Amino acid sequence: MPLPLGFTGARIDRADRLRTDAEAFAAATQDPRATCLAMDGIDPVPGERGGLIWEPLDPADDRALLLLGIDDAGAPRFVRAPAPGARIDARSRTVMRLIPLLSPEEAALYGGARSLVDWHARHGFCAVCAAPTAIFRGGWGRKCGNCGSEHFPRVDPVVIMLAEYQDRVLVGRQPGFPPGFFSALAGFVEPGESLEEAVARELFEEAGIQVSDVVYVASQPWPFPSSLMIGCRAVAHDTALTIDTTELEAAMWVERAEVRAALAGEMGASFMAPPPLAIARYLLEDWAG
Amino acid sequence: MPLPLGFTGARIDRADRLRTDAEAFAAATQDPRATCLAMDGIDPVPGERGGLIWEPLDPADDRALLLLGIDDAGAPRFVRAPAPGARIDARSRTVMRLIPLLSPEEAALYGGARSLVDWHARHGFCAVCAAPTAIFRGGWGRKCGNCGSEHFPRVDPVVIMLAEYQDRVLVGRQPGFPPGFFSALAGFVEPGESLEEAVARELFEEAGIQVSDVVYVASQPWPFPSSLMIGCRAVAHDTALTIDTTELEAAMWVERAEVRAALAGEMGASFMAPPPLAIARYLLEDWAG
Ligand SMILES: [Zn+2]
Ligand SMILES: [Zn+2]
Repeated sequence: MPLPLGFTGARIDRADRLRTDAEAFAAATQDPRATCLAMDGIDPVPGERGGLIWEPLDPADDRALLLLGIDDAGAPRFVRAPAPGARIDARSRTVMRLIPLLSPEEAALYGGARSLVDWHARHGFCAVCAAPTAIFRGGWGRKCGNCGSEHFPRVDPVVIMLAEYQDRVLVGRQPGFPPGFFSALAGFVEPGESLEEAVARELFEEAGIQVSDVVYVASQPWPFPSSLMIGCRAVAHDTALTIDTTELEAAMWVERAEVRAALAGEMGASFMAPPPLAIARYLLEDWAG
Repeated sequence: MPLPLGFTGARIDRADRLRTDAEAFAAATQDPRATCLAMDGIDPVPGERGGLIWEPLDPADDRALLLLGIDDAGAPRFVRAPAPGARIDARSRTVMRLIPLLSPEEAALYGGARSLVDWHARHGFCAVCAAPTAIFRGGWGRKCGNCGSEHFPRVDPVVIMLAEYQDRVLVGRQPGFPPGFFSALAGFVEPGESLEEAVARELFEEAGIQVSDVVYVASQPWPFPSSLMIGCRAVAHDTALTIDTTELEAAMWVERAEVRAALAGEMGASFMAPPPLAIARYLLEDWAG
């Protein structure tokens, strides 16, 4: 069995019922057991032993509290919205070194918090009418003070897939990847298509191959900034590749033994496999058996 | 086998390569075979025999052209962006009567166009900085003229699922449903959760049941305004229900024979099943065998 998927397994009751109940929400903020996730922008502040830091609520901090949920012990967990106008870097270089130090449960809780805070930082204004928006629903939305439009955090579905031909699968590398690194092909699902159609379109666009028999394998949230990775496999009709070089630097068909060597990190492996947090690694592990 | 899924099966090459190639895009707009989908706001204009209407491009129309793609005959197909500031009704009452008159391929093409036009109508301004945004990438995005932020059409993933217990499945009805109508339970996927976690959370929130063994069944785009419906099944641990009455008016466990009677539209059926366009019907057909 492959490892559990990165950023899944948060042990939290999201407590949707508290989001729309102002009295219950206020009571949660007054709960002496309530804590708030310490963040540096949208990066985690690492604790002494590598875990997250959960602090008592600071009444002097006037940034809005976003409700992550209620933990197993019944304690409310929050994160602070960014200060209005605060700039948040799109992607810090250190976060990918900090996340592997977290337990899977903490990484999942942090991932959801990161996506939520990042979304608030980029949605201070109404896309419909340009007026300022204000937080509502316990932190899980913003409402326009002018036209009344309600805006909700984005989750962008992405298909990520292995095309299979006989006993080989297709892996590719994007221009920015570290040397030797290859992964599953991926792309955003667009309006007007099913997952299966998006898989077929992306494989044709990026690698010029036609596929059928798309099957779903697994899914994972990916908080950079807020994707839902949907892992699939598909059967290719042949192996001739036509690479879209604006998307991919290279792509190649690899055999099961090559995939196993890459997953094991062997010296002579023909490519470097994706890290344990990524669903692409899960897809390769699942296929390699 | 269940029917094909509504809003899938558009016969179009989305031609991503033309979106970022200004010269090729301009050539497509000059192609004498190019046509534009006739829309009334975001509703289809019905043709004489119930199909869509595709008109030659009108050079006097100054609304931007959004590229839907290239059809089987090599002809570019477009739809017009809404005029700046145009108001578009969220949901017309007539559209659900018009769509069943379309072929599956036309319904799929229309669905994608509707989602795209609706998104443009609601994203004239930058959510980051409130400045006006302008169309780019052939109609598949908007870019802020002030801060440079790029915005892309939303696709909101929704899980829709049948909880199973022995030989029964759970169906529910929302307050606004027509009398007797029951469907699969559903809800938006949130940042920080996998599909499987979203299925378990929604079933617990709405019906108070715990589930495991979530399996994926099928997916469908749903252009009201732009959801990606992801159909699943899950195994319930028991049948005791605690209904969240803000979400559901009622829910009940139904047997295979009851589902078959509902799908057949029998007089004595214990509920009215969802219409053929909806993935909820597909889930019921798939389960009832
Ligand atoms: Zn507004
Ligand atoms: Zn801007």
